[in-house]
Amino acid sequence: MVTINCDMGEAFGIYRFGDDAACMPFVTHANIACGFHASDPVTMRRTVRDAVQAGIRIGSHPGLPDREGFGRRPMQMTREEVYSLVLYQTGALQAFVRAQGGELSHIKPHGSLFGMAQNELHVAEGIADAAEALELPMIAYSDCCMSEVFTRRGIPFSCEFYADLDYGDDGRQIISREHAAVPSAVVCDKVLRAVKEGVTRSVNGKDVAVVAESICVHSDTPDALEVAKAVYETLKREGVLEAV
Amino acid sequence: MVTINCDMGEAFGIYRFGDDAACMPFVTHANIACGFHASDPVTMRRTVRDAVQAGIRIGSHPGLPDREGFGRRPMQMTREEVYSLVLYQTGALQAFVRAQGGELSHIKPHGSLFGMAQNELHVAEGIADAAEALELPMIAYSDCCMSEVFTRRGIPFSCEFYADLDYGDDGRQIISREHAAVPSAVVCDKVLRAVKEGVTRSVNGKDVAVVAESICVHSDTPDALEVAKAVYETLKREGVLEAV
Amino acid sequence: MVTINCDMGEAFGIYRFGDDAACMPFVTHANIACGFHASDPVTMRRTVRDAVQAGIRIGSHPGLPDREGFGRRPMQMTREEVYSLVLYQTGALQAFVRAQGGELSHIKPHGSLFGMAQNELHVAEGIADAAEALELPMIAYSDCCMSEVFTRRGIPFSCEFYADLDYGDDGRQIISREHAAVPSAVVCDKVLRAVKEGVTRSVNGKDVAVVAESICVHSDTPDALEVAKAVYETLKREGVLEAV
Amino acid sequence: MVTINCDMGEAFGIYRFGDDAACMPFVTHANIACGFHASDPVTMRRTVRDAVQAGIRIGSHPGLPDREGFGRRPMQMTREEVYSLVLYQTGALQAFVRAQGGELSHIKPHGSLFGMAQNELHVAEGIADAAEALELPMIAYSDCCMSEVFTRRGIPFSCEFYADLDYGDDGRQIISREHAAVPSAVVCDKVLRAVKEGVTRSVNGKDVAVVAESICVHSDTPDALEVAKAVYETLKREGVLEAV
Repeated sequence: MVTINCDMGEAFGIYRFGDDAACMPFVTHANIACGFHASDPVTMRRTVRDAVQAGIRIGSHPGLPDREGFGRRPMQMTREEVYSLVLYQTGALQAFVRAQGGELSHIKPHGSLFGMAQNELHVAEGIADAAEALELPMIAYSDCCMSEVFTRRGIPFSCEFYADLDYGDDGRQIISREHAAVPSAVVCDKVLRAVKEGVTRSVNGKDVAVVAESICVHSDTPDALEVAKAVYETLKREGVLEAV
Repeated sequence: MVTINCDMGEAFGIYRFGDDAACMPFVTHANIACGFHASDPVTMRRTVRDAVQAGIRIGSHPGLPDREGFGRRPMQMTREEVYSLVLYQTGALQAFVRAQGGELSHIKPHGSLFGMAQNELHVAEGIADAAEALELPMIAYSDCCMSEVFTRRGIPFSCEFYADLDYGDDGRQIISREHAAVPSAVVCDKVLRAVKEGVTRSVNGKDVAVVAESICVHSDTPDALEVAKAVYETLKREGVLEAV
Repeated sequence: MVTINCDMGEAFGIYRFGDDAACMPFVTHANIACGFHASDPVTMRRTVRDAVQAGIRIGSHPGLPDREGFGRRPMQMTREEVYSLVLYQTGALQAFVRAQGGELSHIKPHGSLFGMAQNELHVAEGIADAAEALELPMIAYSDCCMSEVFTRRGIPFSCEFYADLDYGDDGRQIISREHAAVPSAVVCDKVLRAVKEGVTRSVNGKDVAVVAESICVHSDTPDALEVAKAVYETLKREGVLEAV
Repeated sequence: MVTINCDMGEAFGIYRFGDDAACMPFVTHANIACGFHASDPVTMRRTVRDAVQAGIRIGSHPGLPDREGFGRRPMQMTREEVYSLVLYQTGALQAFVRAQGGELSHIKPHGSLFGMAQNELHVAEGIADAAEALELPMIAYSDCCMSEVFTRRGIPFSCEFYADLDYGDDGRQIISREHAAVPSAVVCDKVLRAVKEGVTRSVNGKDVAVVAESICVHSDTPDALEVAKAVYETLKREGVLEAV
């Protein structure tokens, strides 16, 4: 059984970003931005309210302190800095979730913080420090520093697969600053193969092993809503979608 | 019985501000900055750790989103914005406090947010919305929008008196962007009079009524430590200091 | 003869805002955001490049240091702060304009900084200090602190009229955080009346005096492009549009 | 002949940092922070005023957009981003310098931007793009991407030697987030040897080649003033200090 997660609440001030409310019916887990790479307190309040009403699970989506780069520019951070920024952002979001009568269900790092945690041990440890302090499971990635650290320290996590990103020959997602459009039929085939066979085709045409426990769809791709809906319906029809 | 509160954790990045650890033995309540007008996640982590070790009560000290002006420049804010920024900052601090095994004890708004809440009803209501959501008492002020709103809505609060600020003829503190030095003997006389008689001398030499349930000392005044110590020992000697 | 000015370059990082390039053929003056209320260095570089290519005049559009509120929340600022923030932002933009072989033509304050300068003498003086230091004319407003200060100090300025904002009975524009849609036929009638008769109809149906030397169109209104085009063609047809 | 340069104007809002005015008599070139890693418009105005009065040369000291990390955390940046942030910050400073009747004399990148430009070609190219657009010389470093790019593109530069930083066996300075104290006698010996012999002793006791055309002293080291004064008097006594 798999889940569908989507990064949400990434608007900021007067600026709009994606159509979260429209996507919510087609995901099981919302990862909500916490005011560092995107969002602000009022946007968090409104996004949490919508997610609670939609009855989906709510996780924090902490990012690097780089609003201008949308958290997609790697930065050098110490373990204490990583721990502190994940704790800060998740604590802030938790207050909004509890104010609406809900509870946080997980943490998923954003953008380059996620990428850094795949490759830098001390970043993965800093995130684990925060997850332990908050007693929350993670949405993470297979076969990387995060999976190694979380496994060793007994922090529950599910591995995600990106419906709408390309993969390299190393089995890793290719992070771009802006996402390109992908036809939803192609996406659904790719997702099903990852879920059922545990493999995906890399940009170089090589089959690489992946672990697809939670399917990630983005809200800032063109046709995001259509993609989310198609993935949702495909997984449901195949009987592999976890109920919220 | 009165308490002593002090704004703490107002350093930022490489910049230092006051000597919090030295002041902690002489206060009962620390109001810890939450990353908007001052502080950052690592500073919050360290300040909370010190305050938990010192065994004093820890409250949030949320400020306006104006680091450059240290939260001392009034801004026009809606009720929803005030609610959201207090909830955000207090939630973030709460995560650090709980990670250290403590619990938040109160909220005290910072600088111009405090000043605005004295005079603007919708600001006081926004703060009250956050205090209700978090079920936390306030450190506030007498005879103003805050005291009116908190009383009406049943939100517990204690009124503070400023050991080291001047007062106007309206019984209100005079907020300056930087604080001037005051001899500690003068401060102690002023504090005792406020606590015992409920009056203080305004800048124009007029006696005005004040409610002094919690004495506020600042850490950014020159001789802050000496002042804090003197106030602490005076109140203890007079038998009016509440035990932590 | 009148000009048409439009606030431009108000995107930020990954966030889009209006379609500047499409509007440029229909305005004579671009007021380009400078990184405080909106924009960032890369956005400034690209917007300036487009404006230089379009052959229109380029002015700075400095705002309050409040990205979250898009510079539309009044803040208390000293004269030195106002001077310094206008000089900083305009200097930054000037470097981009000169790097493209152009020259700055004017300054127009943004949002609440503009509003504050209408009503607060020290804000208007601070802006005048910067305009004098930079030897640049202003786009400003009639019958307010700005017009009084600029006239007294000999700073050239033209008064603007808002094609797409409502007016109060005091002859002042009503600033909202987000702008509403207005049919372009209505806008053109309103603009022509302001230009030819020097009056406009207030929200209460009263005719109030206005000075319409430069018509301001916004890029964040719905149908912004259609409005800009209609105003441009109307003014050109009537023979009152100044050539760039 | 050598110069002495010092990073200045690195205070921010209410926060103090070093004693610039006291150090100015003992340096020939002030590198003034421009509001990204440190400083703000009012601080820039005041620092420029002091430097103009002191009659020393004024350069821009642009840094990464990371105030919390004081620009000392490497970030991934594109060439266009580097170009734009150097142009933005230098343009802003230039306006303050011209408003005081002065002229900018050079650019010296701050902290990790300097470090990145030593090692990453596209960062050095982005800085060169800005130096060309502004027609300003650089303070840079020998035997690295910067010296290679600036030499190739004909951008004048002088190489700096750090009076108060340690060196690795690769002849590169070791950048720490906070600087440690060094006795001024040790510093002066080290500086003279670098200037006269073109070598310095690395942290591992190895003599490594350096180019010391401009001696850099920091204002955030303990005893900064004493160190600056000692270096100034030593170089003057030895007859190798360039007159301003």
